[in-house]
Amino acid sequence: MRRIEAEVDVLAANRAFYEAFEARDIDAMSELWEHSDRIVCTHPGWQTLRGWASVSGSWFALFSNSAPLQFILSNESVATEGDVAWVTVDENLISETISGTVAAVNMFVFDGQRWRLVVHHGAAVAAR
Amino acid sequence: MRRIEAEVDVLAANRAFYEAFEARDIDAMSELWEHSDRIVCTHPGWQTLRGWASVSGSWFALFSNSAPLQFILSNESVATEGDVAWVTVDENLISETISGTVAAVNMFVFDGQRWRLVVHHGAAVAAR
Repeated sequence: MRRIEAEVDVLAANRAFYEAFEARDIDAMSELWEHSDRIVCTHPGWQTLRGWASVSGSWFALFSNSAPLQFILSNESVATEGDVAWVTVDENLISETISGTVAAVNMFVFDGQRWRLVVHHGAAVAAR
Repeated sequence: MRRIEAEVDVLAANRAFYEAFEARDIDAMSELWEHSDRIVCTHPGWQTLRGWASVSGSWFALFSNSAPLQFILSNESVATEGDVAWVTVDENLISETISGTVAAVNMFVFDGQRWRLVVHHGAAVAAR
């Protein structure tokens, strides 16, 4: 796969992640992740969660218990190395209860067919 | 390179990163990073910095202006995919002015000789 094509596919996977997040669609979210022990997910302010069992549990909890979130994404950029890609993006949050920006990095591994999430790491950007 | 050997080398590079950080050693820090446009660094609370010019500038600023930091690292884990590796680790900070835990992910790319940092992303863990 050429690099430009890969980057287009990775950015599509990255947007699908935020669409699943906004839609609170646990099936779509599940499809996006590699189901393995090596994946990691750090929601802003949380301890790092390791492995699909913990990560999927966090999405169930977030989609069940917290207010729906909307994101405006900005400063999206992508890089690739072999079958691995990383995207950095600013998640500009809009909700009734939360606002602000989260600086995120999302890492994907190409499994031969699709790019699967292996790392999602979000850090709140301090208000100026 | 076999996977276990790679993981040992990656963890050594990861520790070298924190040693350079604690020692405020800009040359050692510079050696650890890939000097390219695709690297990204998110210090806790900061906007994401992209590219070596911005990233190196942040280390100069941190080493010049902020109080020295000490880290106790915990929950270190590593995964690899081809020539890419990612480490998650909790940085337990000890200083006169700051305490608390930062959940970090550090990504490395093997350049044929050494593992070079391409992503450092730190998020403060909320106190319970």
